[in-house]
Amino acid sequence: MQDKLMLMIPGPTPVPEAALLALAKHPIGHRTSEFSNILAEVTENLKWLHQTQSDVMLLTTSGTGAVEAGMINFLSPGDRILVGCNGKFGERWAEVGEAYSLNVERITAEWGQPLDPQAFAEKLEADKEKQIKAVVVTHSETSTGVLNDLETINRHVKNHGEALIIVDAVTSLGAVNVPMDAWGLDVVGSGSQKGYMIPPGLGIVAVSPKAWEAYKTAKLPRYYLDLGKYRKATAKNTTPFTPPVNMIFALHATLRMMKQEGLDGIFTRHQRLMQATRAGIKGLNLPLFVSDDCGSPAITAVAPAGIAADQVRAIMKKHFDIALAGGQDHLSNKIFRIGHLGFVSDRDILSAISALEVVMHELGYENFTPGAGVAAAARVFAQS
Amino acid sequence: MQDKLMLMIPGPTPVPEAALLALAKHPIGHRTSEFSNILAEVTENLKWLHQTQSDVMLLTTSGTGAVEAGMINFLSPGDRILVGCNGKFGERWAEVGEAYSLNVERITAEWGQPLDPQAFAEKLEADKEKQIKAVVVTHSETSTGVLNDLETINRHVKNHGEALIIVDAVTSLGAVNVPMDAWGLDVVGSGSQKGYMIPPGLGIVAVSPKAWEAYKTAKLPRYYLDLGKYRKATAKNTTPFTPPVNMIFALHATLRMMKQEGLDGIFTRHQRLMQATRAGIKGLNLPLFVSDDCGSPAITAVAPAGIAADQVRAIMKKHFDIALAGGQDHLSNKIFRIGHLGFVSDRDILSAISALEVVMHELGYENFTPGAGVAAAARVFAQS
Repeated sequence: MQDKLMLMIPGPTPVPEAALLALAKHPIGHRTSEFSNILAEVTENLKWLHQTQSDVMLLTTSGTGAVEAGMINFLSPGDRILVGCNGKFGERWAEVGEAYSLNVERITAEWGQPLDPQAFAEKLEADKEKQIKAVVVTHSETSTGVLNDLETINRHVKNHGEALIIVDAVTSLGAVNVPMDAWGLDVVGSGSQKGYMIPPGLGIVAVSPKAWEAYKTAKLPRYYLDLGKYRKATAKNTTPFTPPVNMIFALHATLRMMKQEGLDGIFTRHQRLMQATRAGIKGLNLPLFVSDDCGSPAITAVAPAGIAADQVRAIMKKHFDIALAGGQDHLSNKIFRIGHLGFVSDRDILSAISALEVVMHELGYENFTPGAGVAAAARVFAQS
Repeated sequence: MQDKLMLMIPGPTPVPEAALLALAKHPIGHRTSEFSNILAEVTENLKWLHQTQSDVMLLTTSGTGAVEAGMINFLSPGDRILVGCNGKFGERWAEVGEAYSLNVERITAEWGQPLDPQAFAEKLEADKEKQIKAVVVTHSETSTGVLNDLETINRHVKNHGEALIIVDAVTSLGAVNVPMDAWGLDVVGSGSQKGYMIPPGLGIVAVSPKAWEAYKTAKLPRYYLDLGKYRKATAKNTTPFTPPVNMIFALHATLRMMKQEGLDGIFTRHQRLMQATRAGIKGLNLPLFVSDDCGSPAITAVAPAGIAADQVRAIMKKHFDIALAGGQDHLSNKIFRIGHLGFVSDRDILSAISALEVVMHELGYENFTPGAGVAAAARVFAQS
């Protein structure tokens, strides 16, 4: 049905009306007091969302550009870094490090399994000469729906004392607690099309004072991604390069919505959406790809053993106009991913789970009691 | 008056309704055939606009990010490059080169004067060992409103044979003829908030086969700005990183409008807008900052000797809701700039010139016959 699309992919996520209308406004000049006032409020609210007093900066990039900036501004060629790799995005940060001639050491786990904090602890404790300059961790691994144990990994980084902790928070920020200052995170990168509830087109990077110290001696080349320029401009409520004015109008609108819901409200809602989704999938007797103790509140991956995942997605789209994400790389056609991140309500989960029941039925999969999926999800909502 | 703003700055430029409404659409998944179809048409139309058969790629960056990508993908540390510097943007590309440890040689001219093609010729002819790897030229220098003689400079680069010609076409593409293939331009970078008639947030880079040859051995580090990744993805009607979906919806709409107007129509219109603006300014007896033979069809700068340029801008904004741009760096408060680029019609020039007459009158400047500005502009429109 035309224009009836329901996005349940982990980005772009659904966009509320207030943001869509803001996008449709005539742009204004970006070197004006009107724009500075908007930017000042946006920056304040980004600090609130990151739970930080440090600098939070907006870049015209995707999330990848934001995390790359978060790496290359604080390191020099040959620097040793540890990169957690248990999915497509962890692997991407290792590739970024290699593209810049860093000495990259991967800490791996199977895709679908969480990173083992102990593996980081061992490397960090053995590094008596403090040669490890940074540890890069993908908090919520979008490609699998694993939430890595950032808090524990970060504790080991803090024990090391020297290394920076650089976090890909692209699908965790605005869904899960990421208390930057309380945990002492050094760099937190994210993207607009996720918890922020606006379309793709803006990268966000937050930087701690410790990382700014490292910036002073970091030698990797950069200009457009030079965060020092963004810091200086942000302090004056402006931007070093022409910003995506309309995207910032939209972010202005959604950050106000987020503040109104409150951090606790946002985190509790995403927790509930995850629990209901997982319960619904279990009710349909479908195998979850990630175990309960490390499921991401942003994305749930399902491995419909024996059934082509892409066929499930195709029928969900065709019959119900619900867009699910597929598996990436070797998980292609093996899993489908349900995004429940950002502007998503309890109602959306009920729609998705009940539609999925119909689709599985259509595919000849009858290994569940009719209505059991939605009943299990409903039970979660009734209890919370 | 609220929401009555008329943008006459050189970016963001006014945005037509079709693009605003496209921005306000719900995003769709970027890994879908629906999005690929849109991207395929956008890419075809970008090739039409660039008058090229080569690759044209979309980046989530500002214009600066696009031109930086256009430099760093084809060069290695220590490479000698010539950079034309006669304004803020030329100077910026020299800084980019320095940030990446290139051996940068500036070919300078006073701000407001055009680059001297002969100065390039001398350097290029003297380079018998073919050490000059690239020549970077800002076609339309946005900071001053000078249109540099790209065609002649490029002819000298072609005579050299080795060096790439890298063009900042940010405020020339979509306003002035930039026949990429006919002239043999190697890299052409631009930004969405100019001739493309959409808000800021997209960078566009076109790359010739000769530049792709240089790419194979170029050693400057990059990942997010690695054009090889964009080339590979674009060939499959997709993008290497999440694209700004809504911005591409908008570009889809405006490129159709541009095709309908036709290249000749677009270039003739901008030529006429420039001539009428310049005639109007002369009619008001105000000094043009740039001489007739090198005025940019995108921007006209005025140096209102004896009157603070920012005061003119302030009253234009306050009384008429017309936004003009100021001078940058040492030209601050010395000039104001009238943008007539993109979605601008003859009517807009009449409004601006007649409003300017009122403002100059309010500022006590009476050195013109009442109505002479608008009469001179009108004469241009009547004749063309």
